[in-house]
Amino acid sequence: MPQRLTVLFFGDSFVAGVGDPTGLGWTGRLVAGSRRPGLDLTGYPLGIRRNTSADVLARWEAETAARLPDTGTTRLVVSFGVNDSTDDGAGRPRVEAAESVANLRTLLTRAETLGLPTLVVGPPPIADPRTNHRVLGLDALLADEARAHGVPVVPVVHDLLPDETWLSEVRAGDGAHPGARGYAALAALVRPSWDTFLADALGDQGASDHAAADGLTGAR
Amino acid sequence: MPQRLTVLFFGDSFVAGVGDPTGLGWTGRLVAGSRRPGLDLTGYPLGIRRNTSADVLARWEAETAARLPDTGTTRLVVSFGVNDSTDDGAGRPRVEAAESVANLRTLLTRAETLGLPTLVVGPPPIADPRTNHRVLGLDALLADEARAHGVPVVPVVHDLLPDETWLSEVRAGDGAHPGARGYAALAALVRPSWDTFLADALGDQGASDHAAADGLTGAR
Repeated sequence: MPQRLTVLFFGDSFVAGVGDPTGLGWTGRLVAGSRRPGLDLTGYPLGIRRNTSADVLARWEAETAARLPDTGTTRLVVSFGVNDSTDDGAGRPRVEAAESVANLRTLLTRAETLGLPTLVVGPPPIADPRTNHRVLGLDALLADEARAHGVPVVPVVHDLLPDETWLSEVRAGDGAHPGARGYAALAALVRPSWDTFLADALGDQGASDHAAADGLTGAR
Repeated sequence: MPQRLTVLFFGDSFVAGVGDPTGLGWTGRLVAGSRRPGLDLTGYPLGIRRNTSADVLARWEAETAARLPDTGTTRLVVSFGVNDSTDDGAGRPRVEAAESVANLRTLLTRAETLGLPTLVVGPPPIADPRTNHRVLGLDALLADEARAHGVPVVPVVHDLLPDETWLSEVRAGDGAHPGARGYAALAALVRPSWDTFLADALGDQGASDHAAADGLTGAR
């Protein structure tokens, strides 16, 4: 029997892959790129457009309970923050940064209680400088919170802000979402931590140590 | 502004695309094949492995409420029945056919009340004759129930049972799920009804009539 691994991806439109004509987004690329003989990997893409951290917090537990498999290992990946940072129309973010961080804290604490190791992916930039300014601040706070829980976190905004592929596709699209190449770039940023996360989930300490060693040497 | 259309796909592992190395499944193929300028189409794949009609009934409304967009049109696609038909270990189906039909009736009645037009896709065959025998019976009952609600329905089991691509991939896989070619075959069976369903959703009666005419003539 192949080893069963279930990964639930919670978050916003970026998690849903909005704008990607292939329909894969970054989550679909990670899952498809990790298929191999002996591994029965199921990814549940659970991003919703316009979702803030508060929206994710309100639904993730019920949607996770409905998807817990009868066998194998289950993991969570969460990514939010762009919608928290967009303007509420009155000059304030839709969710204040302190509340976004509190929402992540609540989610990670509960996930730990439920025995669901989690990977956090930071919010990406869009084509709006005011939102991006808030995203940069929130990204640092979310990363600190994740690290305080001992949870792996992948900030992406600093890499994507100067990424011409990302920004040109966002501008050519709806001003927020990239196309296929942008999502591939985002997936590539997450992949090293994803690979380690999966190796840990599979109890494959050899592969995990291997991935960590690769990260240190950068040699391959 | 492009026209917004949101489609929620509820069902089982076939709706989740399990076994498809591309990660698209039949739902992802339909959505990707319908992207075009002026249409902002979001597909939410909400299939869950091992889900019966009872499992779908228990969750679809809360998961739909969380995904209703602030603008545009929303539609449902539902597909279940294989897990209802598999053996419970004591020689009975996991869900009796009469209960499966009652679950569909409850769902369709509620969806109509909520103003959510629905497309029903019948259960496909697997590599187990006893399950397939039950699927054939259930498929007819589900189709009758859908038609009684005036809801479009696409039976697929009669086309896929003699389909060598489908069955060879199912046998080469886990005995239930096909690979990429099988999912492409399933998507092709659903596509004509899907195209009409989308055209109706978009208020594009010309395109809808066009699709119906194509189905009648089979000429293009």
